[in-house]
Amino acid sequence: MDKSDHSMLIDFYEFTMANGYYESAHRDRMVYFDLFFRDIPDHGGYAIMAGLESVVEFIENLSFSDEDIEYLRSRGMFSEDFLAYLADFRFTGDVHAVPEGTVVFPREPLVTIRATAVEAQLVETYLLLAINHQSLIATKASRVKHAAGRDRTLIEMGARRAHGVSSANLGARAAYIGGADTTSNTLSDRLYGIPAAGTMAHSWVQMFASEYEAFKHYAELYPDMCTFLVDTYDTLRSGVPNAIRVIKEVLIPKGISKYAVRIDSGDLTYLSKKARKMLDEAGLEDCRIVASNALDEYLIRALLTQGAPIDIFGVGERLITAKSDPVFGGVYKLVATEEEGEIIPKIKISDNPDKITIPHFKKLYRIYDKEGSAAADLLTVHDETIDTDKPLTIFDPVHTWKKTTFTDYSVKSLLVPIFRHGERVYTLPDIEAIKKHCQKEMDSLWEEVKRFDYPHQYYVDLSEKLWNIRENLIRRHADD
Amino acid sequence: MDKSDHSMLIDFYEFTMANGYYESAHRDRMVYFDLFFRDIPDHGGYAIMAGLESVVEFIENLSFSDEDIEYLRSRGMFSEDFLAYLADFRFTGDVHAVPEGTVVFPREPLVTIRATAVEAQLVETYLLLAINHQSLIATKASRVKHAAGRDRTLIEMGARRAHGVSSANLGARAAYIGGADTTSNTLSDRLYGIPAAGTMAHSWVQMFASEYEAFKHYAELYPDMCTFLVDTYDTLRSGVPNAIRVIKEVLIPKGISKYAVRIDSGDLTYLSKKARKMLDEAGLEDCRIVASNALDEYLIRALLTQGAPIDIFGVGERLITAKSDPVFGGVYKLVATEEEGEIIPKIKISDNPDKITIPHFKKLYRIYDKEGSAAADLLTVHDETIDTDKPLTIFDPVHTWKKTTFTDYSVKSLLVPIFRHGERVYTLPDIEAIKKHCQKEMDSLWEEVKRFDYPHQYYVDLSEKLWNIRENLIRRHADD
Repeated sequence: MDKSDHSMLIDFYEFTMANGYYESAHRDRMVYFDLFFRDIPDHGGYAIMAGLESVVEFIENLSFSDEDIEYLRSRGMFSEDFLAYLADFRFTGDVHAVPEGTVVFPREPLVTIRATAVEAQLVETYLLLAINHQSLIATKASRVKHAAGRDRTLIEMGARRAHGVSSANLGARAAYIGGADTTSNTLSDRLYGIPAAGTMAHSWVQMFASEYEAFKHYAELYPDMCTFLVDTYDTLRSGVPNAIRVIKEVLIPKGISKYAVRIDSGDLTYLSKKARKMLDEAGLEDCRIVASNALDEYLIRALLTQGAPIDIFGVGERLITAKSDPVFGGVYKLVATEEEGEIIPKIKISDNPDKITIPHFKKLYRIYDKEGSAAADLLTVHDETIDTDKPLTIFDPVHTWKKTTFTDYSVKSLLVPIFRHGERVYTLPDIEAIKKHCQKEMDSLWEEVKRFDYPHQYYVDLSEKLWNIRENLIRRHADD
Repeated sequence: MDKSDHSMLIDFYEFTMANGYYESAHRDRMVYFDLFFRDIPDHGGYAIMAGLESVVEFIENLSFSDEDIEYLRSRGMFSEDFLAYLADFRFTGDVHAVPEGTVVFPREPLVTIRATAVEAQLVETYLLLAINHQSLIATKASRVKHAAGRDRTLIEMGARRAHGVSSANLGARAAYIGGADTTSNTLSDRLYGIPAAGTMAHSWVQMFASEYEAFKHYAELYPDMCTFLVDTYDTLRSGVPNAIRVIKEVLIPKGISKYAVRIDSGDLTYLSKKARKMLDEAGLEDCRIVASNALDEYLIRALLTQGAPIDIFGVGERLITAKSDPVFGGVYKLVATEEEGEIIPKIKISDNPDKITIPHFKKLYRIYDKEGSAAADLLTVHDETIDTDKPLTIFDPVHTWKKTTFTDYSVKSLLVPIFRHGERVYTLPDIEAIKKHCQKEMDSLWEEVKRFDYPHQYYVDLSEKLWNIRENLIRRHADD
């Protein structure tokens, strides 16, 4: 079996339900599903959308081989009609989605699918997996970069602790979108153009008769990209002095001024301050300091608050696994059906008010104030438009007396068409464009939203029309 | 590029180091690397080895395409000799490893590589990634299954929250090894033979005019595998009564006695007790209860302690991401080199005594008491054997006065040959054999080691010969 074919990455119940719809009056029924999340990881103030490119690839390639069909037949549950349908399957629905690198908030549709119930179920598992994983890592990387500051370099180096190959490769891609500047993983460079870099491990230093010889050999071989790992034996007594010696003996005579030392253990504030002092006293003010060792946004913030003179952060396991909160809880819920061409909004009720869904086929608008900062998001019914020549009043969907009126403002519709009747109508941006878009998005956010501790809760409101539809559905259910 | 080719999943610094060795006196130098971990996730008492099959596949397929070589050439750092070597690359070294499903402990070599320095570096990243990821999930699944008890069924259903495709597929495989009985993910059934199952989502219930009709339609279609999801509207007032009605109307008349209800929200203890009572009063003592919703070993233990009558646990995001501790910190360290055919032990010193490595090419023995329980593990130099006709005294490597002597005991050597001179000499066991092996391994462990809270710390000692070699290396370094 071709292991690069992910078509069968479908929860088994999607097949039982799809076969059930196919064998019922629901065979051709059009439905609308929203993919959205309820909580931001790490109690953060925002998230970064990622995973759309994987979703597009999945949908374009979704098909079932003879062996897949044979496997399903062997389960003895599926009709031959349904299996024949799967053998010729292609996705024929519409997809709207928020582009990768966009800042997103809870309860917003990141992807909206309009398709037959059968098709909509078959894409559920992969869509959730791709968006959940990649948005998780892009969001985490954004936080880590925010802690480091845009002037410092962030290296993603978690491949060895990743949760499998795609966690490493697409994790590196998502981290790059969110804020990493480079990766350790060569395959993500080959596959996605994420610039890969790296220098030496402790084993290199151990292989030579002395640390000095190890550094010297490296500098002679790679004079243009020397980062000396200085903590194999003793950072301050041996590593930094040997690095200084080799920089002066090998690199300076070649006219090279870009080099660094890397500290991978011990107290990074103490050691980086001492190392900085030693380097400066040796006249090597140019020498940059790289720090690594179980870093994340919290530790980086603490190091910088203490004045650690670190220029480059290498972040591994805690970024690639989003260790402090490794689940992005995206869900995929039915929001409408079509009956004789009419869209019928659907709601999922819960005892927990936060879990009641927002029904209907919707639009998602972002409202910008006159400085160009994102001020609020507004969910509307799909056929609503906003006339920015008129004032716009929005209200809190729970405490409806809390209102805000915008006069000098602009809006942007965030959900863009990706597929129409199964045909792709969206050009996938290249990775550099996505990364740049994400930086702009971050610039449009208030600092209060980006704070790690108790961030400002960004407004995501409902238009009056949508709010009324939802209230009516809730009341109708409560009266049942 | 073929996305199923993982050869370039190599941290970039492995290439710079490999090229450096190739271009130095170390080109043909044989080295020994150990892959081991220092801490058990979740402060547990044991871990489960997994990932070896992936490692074997990787090593057997490791090669570099013309495009890979072109990419490396474009970086302008590698010699043409080295690139020509990579173009013809195949792994020619020896690999010893602990079989999948085996219980393992900190500081034990899970994999030992003997190869040229170049080859040993090139396999590092993938070996760590595969063993770290899959051992993490197998260990977590073992804990979850231990909490559930062997009589209750454990469904792995985390695909939608997995960290990418391989996290879902190989995660399902690792979970099956460790203790899951089935998975939601159809692709892991197709690829690895992990039995996939599943019934319905809330969307199924929402698609029909009523919950009763949704259940009835499902029961008519799939009478042999009915699990009714009862919490779409109201578990006790609607879901369970509708399930009872459909079981009596559709399933009982067909003579079917296997069916279940699934509760996916709310207080699972309260709801399962109430549901059990309703089902029993309806004469449906056969009906099993499935519970899901952000479960893990701790929550399952709490539910069962409270007497929740749950027969089947569905565990999603907290298993597939190992949410409570999502990093298995395996490392890969140089432990010896060969000089003129002689093995020279190497040590990596650290200010932190726990981080000082155990040098040399080693054997790993497990010592069983006369009841067949695992009593301790013993690391020895590669040429040591244990004569079980004689008493065996082992001692704590730190508090060396703490000694234990075994008289009636047996031993097993845990590291088995996988590759010899690049040829595979190991037959990969099938997944059922691995799962069974893991169950036996769990049976051989004292309950005290399996406890979640402050488990007994299993002994991993060093032979006197190995201990002396290590002490001498530490002292020699301290005197430098």
